[in-house]
Amino acid sequence: MGGRDRVTLFVDRAVSGQTGAAIDFTIQLLDTGVSKVNIIGDVMAPAQRQVGDRWQRGEITVADEHLASGVTESALYALASAPPAPRLQGSVVVACAPGDWHSIAGHMIAEQLQAGGVATAFLGASTPAADVGRFLAKYRPDALAVTCALPLFFTGFTELTNAAHALDVPVIAGGRSFDEHPEWAIRIGADAYAPDVARALEVLAEWRVTPPRVSPEPIVTDVGLSKLEARADEFAARAITELTTRFPTMTKYTPRQLQRTSEDLAYMVRFAAAARYVDDAALFAEFLTWLVDLLEARNVPKAAVAAGLESLRTLPELRDSEVGFLFEAGLTLLA
Amino acid sequence: MGGRDRVTLFVDRAVSGQTGAAIDFTIQLLDTGVSKVNIIGDVMAPAQRQVGDRWQRGEITVADEHLASGVTESALYALASAPPAPRLQGSVVVACAPGDWHSIAGHMIAEQLQAGGVATAFLGASTPAADVGRFLAKYRPDALAVTCALPLFFTGFTELTNAAHALDVPVIAGGRSFDEHPEWAIRIGADAYAPDVARALEVLAEWRVTPPRVSPEPIVTDVGLSKLEARADEFAARAITELTTRFPTMTKYTPRQLQRTSEDLAYMVRFAAAARYVDDAALFAEFLTWLVDLLEARNVPKAAVAAGLESLRTLPELRDSEVGFLFEAGLTLLA
Repeated sequence: MGGRDRVTLFVDRAVSGQTGAAIDFTIQLLDTGVSKVNIIGDVMAPAQRQVGDRWQRGEITVADEHLASGVTESALYALASAPPAPRLQGSVVVACAPGDWHSIAGHMIAEQLQAGGVATAFLGASTPAADVGRFLAKYRPDALAVTCALPLFFTGFTELTNAAHALDVPVIAGGRSFDEHPEWAIRIGADAYAPDVARALEVLAEWRVTPPRVSPEPIVTDVGLSKLEARADEFAARAITELTTRFPTMTKYTPRQLQRTSEDLAYMVRFAAAARYVDDAALFAEFLTWLVDLLEARNVPKAAVAAGLESLRTLPELRDSEVGFLFEAGLTLLA
Repeated sequence: MGGRDRVTLFVDRAVSGQTGAAIDFTIQLLDTGVSKVNIIGDVMAPAQRQVGDRWQRGEITVADEHLASGVTESALYALASAPPAPRLQGSVVVACAPGDWHSIAGHMIAEQLQAGGVATAFLGASTPAADVGRFLAKYRPDALAVTCALPLFFTGFTELTNAAHALDVPVIAGGRSFDEHPEWAIRIGADAYAPDVARALEVLAEWRVTPPRVSPEPIVTDVGLSKLEARADEFAARAITELTTRFPTMTKYTPRQLQRTSEDLAYMVRFAAAARYVDDAALFAEFLTWLVDLLEARNVPKAAVAAGLESLRTLPELRDSEVGFLFEAGLTLLA
């Protein structure tokens, strides 16, 4: 039974809500000698990505995806409490950046690190940096591990690295947003990037022998950019007004449709700010490509995305800001 | 060992991150003959509330609370997969309203219902109503159970009841936001309210014998109110500008401080809309009292809350709207 088959078998159980069968499946893998680290890394994590891809293609709904995630969480907890218990050396705190509510990747990494022999405290979804700082001051781990699912949380990520560095705690980064761009993780404050738990365990082992030099100087985020980001919902609301003038059919939108359009517009502002933050226009271009694919699977044409960008560009604070050129570039990309 | 002692013993393990000890504790209770339903309802649920109260009083941080919630989730999963497996009769889908990311209460109720003998599918946090509807159409349960932690999600709650009623599926409501006001649950679309799982199991048993008459007519939410709610962040941003004129020290706020102030202002708008939605000014007054207590535990004076209300009242769209009188009443309350 190869890796791919196991993934599909797990996904089948997850999307159909068969919690018991999914737990039995993972415990059987454990009984046949597959390690907890590999069951999570080679079966459950790819399964979760497959579920996400099926949602992206419009094949399953958010409800199906949530049911599947619940099954995965159940299996993760069952696996964590199944013997053997690892011998522990060193300690790490795992957190998600403020604003990031997608905690399942962080939970997987936390269980993998613990199974890999490092005592792990997992702080769950979105946690304010000041509170993570107080926790680190009390717990004094060898490192803080931060997973980041989306570039939306890059400034929150830096708040966490600043809080850790002020206490001389180094930070290791992981998560889907760095898959193609590990350099972003370093640019926003991480001391190391690990594409998987094997590399994370190596880095942590190295750091136990030779703690890295950590700069206590915080990375100062651009206040102008933070303010643009904080006003994303306001800009979206104003752009909607502008869009409605151009597309009078929008006056017939339900509040829910208006809200979804507004969310997409706010995402455009936030991803543009994230792209400026890591100084890489590719981030915004990749987001637009993703959004077009997502909306096309739901029968929303590419032209609607372009119209959204156009309407944001009519707002002087955005057009004349440091993200203005990204909207221009985006319109060229979508043309 | 009385109920209260057990709660404290569980809380001690949870806030110190002792997952193994918390799991052992719950499994030992099970071994001594306490039912899964009672372990969750009489120990874990009050423990989670105690953790929330300690956060409210500023005694623990969000990081501590998240660590504790993670331990509670672990114990919940361990309990769910421990024998005995219940004999199942009937079926229920448990969901949280769109926007509601606080899924632990829903998770507890789902495990209690399953342990109480009803086959349960739990959809986790914030799930769009259309997707819950598709799931109900496929799964065809006897009922949809919706937990609602905060009045912020009342319109989302109604979206779920509308989706369920369109498929002739009745809705049972639970959750902290209805503790003192069960009538709100009925007003926003529920067919029954259950303060605890015992009552929920009774209702579900009754409905299996005699399915309730469910009106397929949706509850139409007030579009003006929905739009006010959707613009909450925009209003907050504009009120901040106004506040800054009056309190020039605010120009020295960090982006994070500005964001928190902005969040509190947006909450004022959302809770005011929720109060109008259930047509009960008490909802807004109770929220203000809660906010004042919360901020006072963090050394923010009551006058700051009043100043926030004042600044929102300067916005013509709010002052002249159907929530305007609530801001007046709030200022009187805080004077």
